[in-house]
Amino acid sequence: MPDATPRPRVVIIGGGFGGLKAAKALRKAPVDVLLIDRRNHHVFQPLLYQVATAALSPGDIAAPIRWILRHQENTQVWLGEVTSIDPHAKRLTLADGATVDFDYLIVSAGATHAYFGHDEWQRWAPGLKTLEDALDIRRRVLLAFELAERATDPAEQRRLLTFVVVGGGPTGVELAGALAEISRHTLANDFREIDPETARVILIEGGPTILGTYPEELSTFARRKLERLGVNVWTNSVVTGISDGKVHLRGETIEAGTILWAAGVSASPLGRSLGVPLDRAGRVLVNDDLSVPGHPEIFVIGDLAALKGPDGKWLPGVAQVAIQQARHAADNLLRRMRGEPTRPFVYRDLGNLATIGRNSAIADLRGWESKGFFAWLVWLFVHVMNLVGFRNRLSVLVQWAFSYLTYQRSVRLITYDDDRELS
Amino acid sequence: MPDATPRPRVVIIGGGFGGLKAAKALRKAPVDVLLIDRRNHHVFQPLLYQVATAALSPGDIAAPIRWILRHQENTQVWLGEVTSIDPHAKRLTLADGATVDFDYLIVSAGATHAYFGHDEWQRWAPGLKTLEDALDIRRRVLLAFELAERATDPAEQRRLLTFVVVGGGPTGVELAGALAEISRHTLANDFREIDPETARVILIEGGPTILGTYPEELSTFARRKLERLGVNVWTNSVVTGISDGKVHLRGETIEAGTILWAAGVSASPLGRSLGVPLDRAGRVLVNDDLSVPGHPEIFVIGDLAALKGPDGKWLPGVAQVAIQQARHAADNLLRRMRGEPTRPFVYRDLGNLATIGRNSAIADLRGWESKGFFAWLVWLFVHVMNLVGFRNRLSVLVQWAFSYLTYQRSVRLITYDDDRELS
Repeated sequence: MPDATPRPRVVIIGGGFGGLKAAKALRKAPVDVLLIDRRNHHVFQPLLYQVATAALSPGDIAAPIRWILRHQENTQVWLGEVTSIDPHAKRLTLADGATVDFDYLIVSAGATHAYFGHDEWQRWAPGLKTLEDALDIRRRVLLAFELAERATDPAEQRRLLTFVVVGGGPTGVELAGALAEISRHTLANDFREIDPETARVILIEGGPTILGTYPEELSTFARRKLERLGVNVWTNSVVTGISDGKVHLRGETIEAGTILWAAGVSASPLGRSLGVPLDRAGRVLVNDDLSVPGHPEIFVIGDLAALKGPDGKWLPGVAQVAIQQARHAADNLLRRMRGEPTRPFVYRDLGNLATIGRNSAIADLRGWESKGFFAWLVWLFVHVMNLVGFRNRLSVLVQWAFSYLTYQRSVRLITYDDDRELS
Repeated sequence: MPDATPRPRVVIIGGGFGGLKAAKALRKAPVDVLLIDRRNHHVFQPLLYQVATAALSPGDIAAPIRWILRHQENTQVWLGEVTSIDPHAKRLTLADGATVDFDYLIVSAGATHAYFGHDEWQRWAPGLKTLEDALDIRRRVLLAFELAERATDPAEQRRLLTFVVVGGGPTGVELAGALAEISRHTLANDFREIDPETARVILIEGGPTILGTYPEELSTFARRKLERLGVNVWTNSVVTGISDGKVHLRGETIEAGTILWAAGVSASPLGRSLGVPLDRAGRVLVNDDLSVPGHPEIFVIGDLAALKGPDGKWLPGVAQVAIQQARHAADNLLRRMRGEPTRPFVYRDLGNLATIGRNSAIADLRGWESKGFFAWLVWLFVHVMNLVGFRNRLSVLVQWAFSYLTYQRSVRLITYDDDRELS
């Protein structure tokens, strides 16, 4: 009598890699799924830096969540912002005051930028998590060149043509490499008063190496490659302050027209409303089956979940972890529905890829290490194949082929939300 | 002795169809050209409605002005907003306080929306002139469907699914046709609580026919076609008021979640600072050689210029007029430099094209009239060939082919400038 009893309602918070995969894993399950996200679109975050650096359009790396799930009949998608979770009442509250009851909950709310307790830095040094962030960075970078072309004071011109990227992880490396390419190649012929090639790109990393999670040989290769592109790599450099157009280090201050933040993330504040222990970054300390202590019907996955691997290290905040956890949480949820015991999550590390400008990447794939052009082809293949939607794949390929052949970046648009004045 | 005397400085205000063509016409002239625009990009306005209706990305129909002119060595491009012109001192003032002196000036500052003296309507009924406008309209349209999916009151749902387009000219017709297609085809499978096909699209025109400048047979065809797409066409309907979610007509009020304005334009306010007679729409009454009365070194072209054709009718505010006038103004400018007499401008009407949804258009080309699929192929060819840049052409073709085959619109993204809350 499947129609006699109402089906359990599974609510999923977040339409990122984790949330989307969880919904898909439940597509044939006897449940009603409701996915809620603050945005109407899923973003393919690994290529966000290409939107920020004018190589791709937002539409190339994003797709409407309800379109992705349109054929999944047990699933509904809501545009809405969940502001709190009441785990005892099994009820969510949304920003517009609406409430939603759930039988099971999968929280995949992700992470946001963290400024080591200095939230005032955000204004001067935006991070890169959403399409809006990417468009903001694109605007700042392009505007810096425009203002430099009109500046009459050489010191001001030099300041405007200095770009600082804070954080030597994959995002920082990708941004710095792309900025160097923009100034060396893309804009080379476009200005009359300034020479874009004189732009300085400085990548600042607090630790001893960039891409510190990679084997030393690969991270050394990446550094050399970046330096050849024209990036100044400053390791062991700790940022002590950021203000309007200034980055303060111990004993030094850099005057920079554009400062980008790629140094830290903290978990979504939604974790706090669960009323369970969190780690220092605000992540929920989940059970090994990904459920929340004391609430077996609530699962937390992805960047918001804190869980250690068999080696005793915390699992990294990458798409692969979120996707595997999503599949696992959906499975455990169905086990619980059926009264079966849940199973502990085991992460299967497929490896890591990072790209350093055109033609070059490093790959650390389960013991197989590679660097240079071949690794870049692997990077390209993996990223295109994982994009959602045939159109996005084709469009990205066309634009990459075009950029590759011409060194151009075709989306060099400075747009605003409103008709604000330039000043 | 070309290097002994400084070359005259020609300033061009505006990087639209007119300004860009004027700069190109001067590429080999012995002058220094400075083009100033409020935006860093040229927009292909005839396809703006496709960005507003999520079929194309902003990057597909726009290109950086300085990139377009990068190989033109006598030309510099500034990002800046000219706020006033002093024709006696031959000096411009920019919003940031900078001043620019000129020997010759070509003003191609275009037009903006006009609300018949009711500027308060703009807030509820945005118009379509810039990329920002297009993204704002896209956001409103997509958000209406999202909110309707979550609405619990049927009356509210019906209001949210009512789309009103004010103005039955080409832009209004294109927007209404695209909105009907979105609701009938694109979104057909994506929602659970609402049926997008029940959306009402109402096109309101004050005059007796839509596309009133076309021969009657073509405008009747367009109306029938629109109605078959599901658009309600209300002619002889004058809008008397617009408020939050309401369009007031004589004796009737429509409750609508989305109201779009395509009914009127007025010239750029920059014309006023010239201190010469303007027409009612704020356009400069130029001499027949396109110069400004009393200021032979200043030319005004495009939507900001008011000039009658040989038939005694005002020339329309279309790209063709701006482009031909740009070429002519550049020629007259060089004649004046050489001390030769200038020549009167004669408009050569190449005809008009308007599209009505997928597969159908009307064409009125110098006596040759066409309607339906073939006219649509002509429309497609003309628009793709006139897009700036090979990449844009290819990208638009790929996306159109994709949309045509699948009925999808791939850029259905709701983005904001800031991280504002949904409410």
